[in-house]
Amino acid sequence: MSTDRFEADYLIETPVSPQAAAEAMAGEQSSGTFVKIPGETQELKERSSARVEYLEVIEEVSCPSLSGAAQSPEGPIQRAMVTLSWPVENIGPDLLNLMATVSGNLFELKQFSGLRILDIRLPDAFASAYPGPRFGIEGTRRLSGVGTGPLIGTIVKPSVGFGPDETARLVDTLASAGIDFIKDDELQANGPSCPFDERVDAVMRVINDHANRTGKKVMFAFNITGEIDDMRRRHDLVVAKGGTCVMASLNSVGLAGMIALGRHAELPIHAHRNGWGYLSRHPMLGWSYVAWSKFWRLAGADHMHVNGLSNKFCEDDDSVITSAKSLLTPMFSEKPCISMPVFSSGQSAVQPPETYRRLGTSDLIYAAGGGIMAHPDGPAAGVDSLRQSWDAAISGVEAEDYALTHPHLLEH
Amino acid sequence: MSTDRFEADYLIETPVSPQAAAEAMAGEQSSGTFVKIPGETQELKERSSARVEYLEVIEEVSCPSLSGAAQSPEGPIQRAMVTLSWPVENIGPDLLNLMATVSGNLFELKQFSGLRILDIRLPDAFASAYPGPRFGIEGTRRLSGVGTGPLIGTIVKPSVGFGPDETARLVDTLASAGIDFIKDDELQANGPSCPFDERVDAVMRVINDHANRTGKKVMFAFNITGEIDDMRRRHDLVVAKGGTCVMASLNSVGLAGMIALGRHAELPIHAHRNGWGYLSRHPMLGWSYVAWSKFWRLAGADHMHVNGLSNKFCEDDDSVITSAKSLLTPMFSEKPCISMPVFSSGQSAVQPPETYRRLGTSDLIYAAGGGIMAHPDGPAAGVDSLRQSWDAAISGVEAEDYALTHPHLLEH
Repeated sequence: MSTDRFEADYLIETPVSPQAAAEAMAGEQSSGTFVKIPGETQELKERSSARVEYLEVIEEVSCPSLSGAAQSPEGPIQRAMVTLSWPVENIGPDLLNLMATVSGNLFELKQFSGLRILDIRLPDAFASAYPGPRFGIEGTRRLSGVGTGPLIGTIVKPSVGFGPDETARLVDTLASAGIDFIKDDELQANGPSCPFDERVDAVMRVINDHANRTGKKVMFAFNITGEIDDMRRRHDLVVAKGGTCVMASLNSVGLAGMIALGRHAELPIHAHRNGWGYLSRHPMLGWSYVAWSKFWRLAGADHMHVNGLSNKFCEDDDSVITSAKSLLTPMFSEKPCISMPVFSSGQSAVQPPETYRRLGTSDLIYAAGGGIMAHPDGPAAGVDSLRQSWDAAISGVEAEDYALTHPHLLEH
Repeated sequence: MSTDRFEADYLIETPVSPQAAAEAMAGEQSSGTFVKIPGETQELKERSSARVEYLEVIEEVSCPSLSGAAQSPEGPIQRAMVTLSWPVENIGPDLLNLMATVSGNLFELKQFSGLRILDIRLPDAFASAYPGPRFGIEGTRRLSGVGTGPLIGTIVKPSVGFGPDETARLVDTLASAGIDFIKDDELQANGPSCPFDERVDAVMRVINDHANRTGKKVMFAFNITGEIDDMRRRHDLVVAKGGTCVMASLNSVGLAGMIALGRHAELPIHAHRNGWGYLSRHPMLGWSYVAWSKFWRLAGADHMHVNGLSNKFCEDDDSVITSAKSLLTPMFSEKPCISMPVFSSGQSAVQPPETYRRLGTSDLIYAAGGGIMAHPDGPAAGVDSLRQSWDAAISGVEAEDYALTHPHLLEH
């Protein structure tokens, strides 16, 4: 990896020559425009231009994936893998302007009937410029007291409608049930019927009580999503009350907000990806999770949602595993920026064996909403069933055999 | 419009019953989840649930637009218009959590082979809670001294590669050419070779010189895209140097960043939408501009990009005009939040008559990059040709006749 250039990989689909299309990408996102400009000297181009580093045509398709591309009389619609590189000198090690540079207008160019950003690679200057996850897996295990295996987690449900006291009562039930981790739903941050400060106060009283009695402090991710100054203040309140995690919705807060939070935070940041579907659902448009998550990892996301196997959404299992593995792959040798993957969405005692088999680690948060609260024998049985399923997965015992001596597992 | 509920309109495509699909949307984004939860009482549901306010099936399609939806044996794939409403009480008048609520997980639900958010409607509590555009059309006209007609604008080109002095020399040329408005390219904010502070210093010296001589101060939108505290500081520097506009890339900065800037700004905010393609390009996924722009208008965007007619991108003219008209349509009766539309992308003297005919107003910024700098007779002729084309459009004279007495027009 060059120390003075950053790179991005794309999957493109184009009715024109892939080489010409890739050069148009490079021009649009650096010193070119649609006509020759005075002042765009050869020297300036050499210094500032993006370069096509790699181009491989991978297939032809008969129909364009997206409408609006230029008609071309010249031949087939082709898909190709393209890598572009830019001089760091164009923007400096600046995540916000990196976003405008690697993404920007590309998705709208007439040359393309499909364009998806697959990955980015950044030189070490970016690692030095941003906080990255300050807690990650190790810090999360330390604060939650869960030394091995996944953190078994859940989400406050109903998603919205509970006041502070009802939320605290639910937390009491879940703490008694042996839960490791609880998060606010992303629909609840500071609603008038469930004000943030009162919720923190009520919930932390319960969590601290349990911790005093049992020595185990449940990690609760309080949803601080809001304006920057409010997020900083809410984070500080959680610290003051002895809380151990804050949560933010990435697509609500945005990158400047997350960087501000990342620089400020003294607790793990639980990053929620709600809205991810509009960025990713069409396979020939938008963002791969691998590329997109790198912005947030560098900004400071300690936990990142990756959906779950056999989830209630559209995403297939391969995609979920690819996302989770990417979070566990270092971004820089000196500063790996590993975020802890959060599995959720329709998760129950069914998915752990396959999740463990495919991921190869239990360094993750495993969150089940209905899977715990709606367990026929109650939340404690729900938590037990998840933990037993994970224990079975990790110890390599088939879940069916394991259930003979662990009855809660059988019921799911 | 109810004072205690907000609404969102969607275009959905589903292989299941549209009524059931709409109810799943309402459940997912309020008090429901995929199983019945203890605590989700009838009283809580009545207080907190989203409601399906409207549903109209509009057509059947033979193929799903997006893969991943549930297979249904029961019948056709149907498209429908759906309106949901939520109690403001769920989130309060909070734009960030509104984003999580009206968008959130909807785009990923298995019930949908297509889902696009078309519009949102907010009660007055939101108007009171946010700054909205502080300058808009009137303030922009006052600061730029352009009382009638469009602001004729351009973009610093090459997009990246110029240092502060070269940028200032270009601004000198453009100011001499009679330009009203110039913006930094979105690829240049604070690059090491073109540091923000030095650029502001060099550019404002030129602009202030021209203003002292001619009485006309060119409005320059300095790209302050960056971290929150940097944006505030850069904004203050522009104010101190006598500048009249700042610019931010919305999809880089994000909503928390823009709200912080909106609350802080004493200058018009020029809002750049680069990245818009990944949010919008598939017609059955993501965001309509009408819905999306309302978040930024309320946050304080004074100018918003809408592309241009016969542009270099994929967007068709109808979509461009719909976007621009929506910005000129009040959001609230007491606080209209009108943002000035910015037309750009491959614009020249060709498009003004049709733009004016379809939009019905010249309350806009008309930005041409190559269309000015690459004019065969130089930038002054480029500016003249645009202004003459607009004058012709506004005065109802056919451009061809007008050109007989205005020679620069003929050359485009």
